[in-house]
Amino acid sequence: MTAPDHVVGVGVDLLADAIEAQAVDVTRVDWRPPMPGTEAGLATVAADPRRRAANEEAVARMLRVQAMLVDVGPASAILGLEPGHFLHAGPPITWDRASGPLRGALMGAAALEGLVDDPEDAGPLFERGQHVSLEPCHHRGAVGPMAGVVTPSMWMFVLEDPDTGARTHCTLNEGLGKVLRYGAYAPEVLDRLRWMAGVLGPLLQAAVRSSGPVDVTGILTQMLQMGDEAHNRNRAGTLMLMRDLAPALVSAAADAGFTTDDVADALRFVGGNDHFFLNLAMPACKLALDAARDIPGSTMVVAMARNGTDFGIQVSGTGDEWFTGPAQLADGLFLGDYGPDDANPDIGDSAITETAGIGGFAMATAPAIVRLVGGSVPDALATTRRMHEITLAENPRWSVPVLEFQGVPTGIDVTRVCRTGVLPQINTGMAGRVAGVGQVGAGLVTPPAEVFPTALARLAELAAAAD
Amino acid sequence: MTAPDHVVGVGVDLLADAIEAQAVDVTRVDWRPPMPGTEAGLATVAADPRRRAANEEAVARMLRVQAMLVDVGPASAILGLEPGHFLHAGPPITWDRASGPLRGALMGAAALEGLVDDPEDAGPLFERGQHVSLEPCHHRGAVGPMAGVVTPSMWMFVLEDPDTGARTHCTLNEGLGKVLRYGAYAPEVLDRLRWMAGVLGPLLQAAVRSSGPVDVTGILTQMLQMGDEAHNRNRAGTLMLMRDLAPALVSAAADAGFTTDDVADALRFVGGNDHFFLNLAMPACKLALDAARDIPGSTMVVAMARNGTDFGIQVSGTGDEWFTGPAQLADGLFLGDYGPDDANPDIGDSAITETAGIGGFAMATAPAIVRLVGGSVPDALATTRRMHEITLAENPRWSVPVLEFQGVPTGIDVTRVCRTGVLPQINTGMAGRVAGVGQVGAGLVTPPAEVFPTALARLAELAAAAD
Repeated sequence: MTAPDHVVGVGVDLLADAIEAQAVDVTRVDWRPPMPGTEAGLATVAADPRRRAANEEAVARMLRVQAMLVDVGPASAILGLEPGHFLHAGPPITWDRASGPLRGALMGAAALEGLVDDPEDAGPLFERGQHVSLEPCHHRGAVGPMAGVVTPSMWMFVLEDPDTGARTHCTLNEGLGKVLRYGAYAPEVLDRLRWMAGVLGPLLQAAVRSSGPVDVTGILTQMLQMGDEAHNRNRAGTLMLMRDLAPALVSAAADAGFTTDDVADALRFVGGNDHFFLNLAMPACKLALDAARDIPGSTMVVAMARNGTDFGIQVSGTGDEWFTGPAQLADGLFLGDYGPDDANPDIGDSAITETAGIGGFAMATAPAIVRLVGGSVPDALATTRRMHEITLAENPRWSVPVLEFQGVPTGIDVTRVCRTGVLPQINTGMAGRVAGVGQVGAGLVTPPAEVFPTALARLAELAAAAD
Repeated sequence: MTAPDHVVGVGVDLLADAIEAQAVDVTRVDWRPPMPGTEAGLATVAADPRRRAANEEAVARMLRVQAMLVDVGPASAILGLEPGHFLHAGPPITWDRASGPLRGALMGAAALEGLVDDPEDAGPLFERGQHVSLEPCHHRGAVGPMAGVVTPSMWMFVLEDPDTGARTHCTLNEGLGKVLRYGAYAPEVLDRLRWMAGVLGPLLQAAVRSSGPVDVTGILTQMLQMGDEAHNRNRAGTLMLMRDLAPALVSAAADAGFTTDDVADALRFVGGNDHFFLNLAMPACKLALDAARDIPGSTMVVAMARNGTDFGIQVSGTGDEWFTGPAQLADGLFLGDYGPDDANPDIGDSAITETAGIGGFAMATAPAIVRLVGGSVPDALATTRRMHEITLAENPRWSVPVLEFQGVPTGIDVTRVCRTGVLPQINTGMAGRVAGVGQVGAGLVTPPAEVFPTALARLAELAAAAD
């Protein structure tokens, strides 16, 4: 048999790599069979004269944003949340379709707000729907990890882009295991939330107001050189936040009415929770992506979010419309005796990190994450490379040293996803599917494929209408 | 031309890699021409019946050590240093042979201790040699970065292995730029050292005594997964130390007589100095290597150290004997307008990190370091792989995620260095060659090749005598 001396690679990169390893010249061509039924939509959108400039504008606006932590305060004051109003992760959903972890978090939050004494009694409240209402975080300038439930008494980080004054928000991270965002609502969960609202939040507020804004985008730059991908590894980011706030925390505590024991408790809590910074990484990503919203003709994804039942995306050129499909089960590693049957489908606004080019998109810079989410180190490196095939740009501020400082792949392009069939790679925590359980594992997941052809069809419709 | 279908690789790995990339089966053989004149010594040492077990014992003892930070205190109390006694980095040296940065640090330290009013007046003190004496840090259970000067009033970390009670020591890190260890002695340098002795040291002492021991070996495990190689990148390590000590620092300050402003200053100083943890990484490495000392027949290097004039190594099987050669100039990147002519030859005990398998040996885990010390990311990866050729073991506790969690190469073997000609790779800061200047850059350097054949000859002599 004669080996070919030149091959045109039309499949996945791994195939091209395998051929290259056989010492054959390879010309890589990023063509693969498009997703079924997308040919007409792809042709229409490709011909949209607005597309190129719109996407360039979307990328430019996104990359220009500097996310600064400027304040901390309760959601009642910061977002104007009223009693009975519950924010949640993902696209809109009603109680009857809500998954276990979202229900668990809503029940716990109802007790936290004093609407019921016992979380277990909260079901009827939501079934009746009187005096309570549900709304996505994304509709209120916020993002929430996992269930993402926000109620008036919860304290939130406030991030601002100094150039535009635009703001985004996120609650304070509770830590791992039995926590509200994973659907747990035991007394210890609510006690912790009360301490966060009574001590941690006000102390952080005093520190931020005294120290001045903290450069969250800058910390993200550093942490991506320190083994964090800022979705499921936030250890270095958390430590840098602590470094930046600890002196002011110490100095401002007494005037804010807190003791040195309170300060020590706060430092111990933040330092003991490697995920604390996630709740700053997420609104920083949303702040960047929000700047790219509502550009007619742009095919760039500006949000990916899950409510535990549905996975939804929003696209710059299609306004606030959600394109949804069923949330998938992650493939990964489980805590203790938990297994795949215990896991809820994918949940949370945290896929905003992947939407901005970090998290699963930046796993090459955080190879140690495979010990948490599964997969191998070569997989992690290959994933980041593969995501460049479906994105519009590299982010020069967020680079991956081991890939010779290449910027992370950012700006998911609906047309590239449809044209290649390559789905965005998300890494994620897994919540127990039963309300009250908490975290059961972590793993890798993708959006349901159909959301991209649906979004493409809408983009094509709008392109045709604009013609 | 017919391509060979099997090649026996006898050269550098990069060649083997290139051949492998051409899809030819490669059998790697770690043979290269030995260093000139070492054939007889290699044969004698290879035949030493004690060698294999001695090296296994050396590796086992080294890997067993757990370095815990157990106390902080002044060198006068901790090491019993008397006025006029100066410790320094590297093998023994006298004033007349001392380089600029070592002289600068000694002059500054003489003023710090009140032996002279002005550092510039200290020269005659050392020239006469009356009432002053110089001794290597290594001879007193200590290590010092760069000039490594230690005097009675300087505060030191105390590290202990709980299994054996063995201890090592190191001063507190001053930061970068104009600092004593780089040979600077301006008033700001001495003021900072006085604040460190008056405030920072006692605060850290109070914190460590109140929090209990800090697991330095454990922090090293983590930081190697966070972009630090623990010689010239210690950012994550510094932040984890701060995380572990900050709560106790806050709680213990008042009883120790310090204000919240003092605490905030201490947190700001440590948080603002990414190299702070180096002075814990170094004595942790020495503690591990000291456990491997004095094993008859062992060819393992237990110290590499430089005084700015001489580079010296000590070997387990040859006791306290130093094998020395001229310290080399590093090749690297320079600060501001400095260039190669401004740099002093290699200086400091910090090569203890490479001796233990981190620093230059672990650059694969810290690719961002090439922006500080020069070279490319592929070089950094290749360096760690190459160091496995001259070491006896991998350290399972200190692993490199991007190399699929392979342990760092540890336990430099004099015979492997002589047999392959591959020299240990050190990365290092560069001091200005003129006393008083401070740091001028950072780069890559190796020991002078001749120290290994000299050590081998002595090992052969001892092997023959034991026969």
